[in-house]
Amino acid sequence: MDCPIAQSLELVGEWWTPLILRDIVMVGLTRFDDIQTNLGIAPTVLTSRLNHLIDTGLLERRQYCEHPPRFDYVPTEAAQDFEPVLRALAKWGQKWTTVPAT
Amino acid sequence: MDCPIAQSLELVGEWWTPLILRDIVMVGLTRFDDIQTNLGIAPTVLTSRLNHLIDTGLLERRQYCEHPPRFDYVPTEAAQDFEPVLRALAKWGQKWTTVPAT
Repeated sequence: MDCPIAQSLELVGEWWTPLILRDIVMVGLTRFDDIQTNLGIAPTVLTSRLNHLIDTGLLERRQYCEHPPRFDYVPTEAAQDFEPVLRALAKWGQKWTTVPAT
Repeated sequence: MDCPIAQSLELVGEWWTPLILRDIVMVGLTRFDDIQTNLGIAPTVLTSRLNHLIDTGLLERRQYCEHPPRFDYVPTEAAQDFEPVLRALAKWGQKWTTVPAT
């Protein structure tokens, strides 16, 4: 489908993916365990989504520990540039959805 | 999850839903057959997504023909207000995804 919205959804349209990008781009998390804890997402699903984001050029994996192997997930320029979409989505959500008081 | 992005995704995060909103809010389509043809979406999936958008207050169904029963799907203010998100997504897609030439 030659529509830029559809093309965007091919990259980031899976459930969880915008929230993972939020954690990495806006919250500044870079480590699997931190993202997993923050989202309460199943580890297998998080692995799958992170790999998809790496394959599509939105994240880079950088090893910060050899034994055991541990990685930082670092946003690329394309991911950084996704922040306005997340902000627009947050603004809309703040106005039009009911957010329970914390 | 008390995050406005997550709350937004609860409403519009299913695959197809942003494209249906694009057709209705930006293209101006209001009829099932027009949306179905434009998206090439399975009718059962479109019915399900439209019903979800009605249930969550983003669309109103207005009957324009009694025999056979036919409806317009009209965007509410919440749906109209989703346009900046679609525009942000389109802008990002134009920059960061490869859109085949038409």
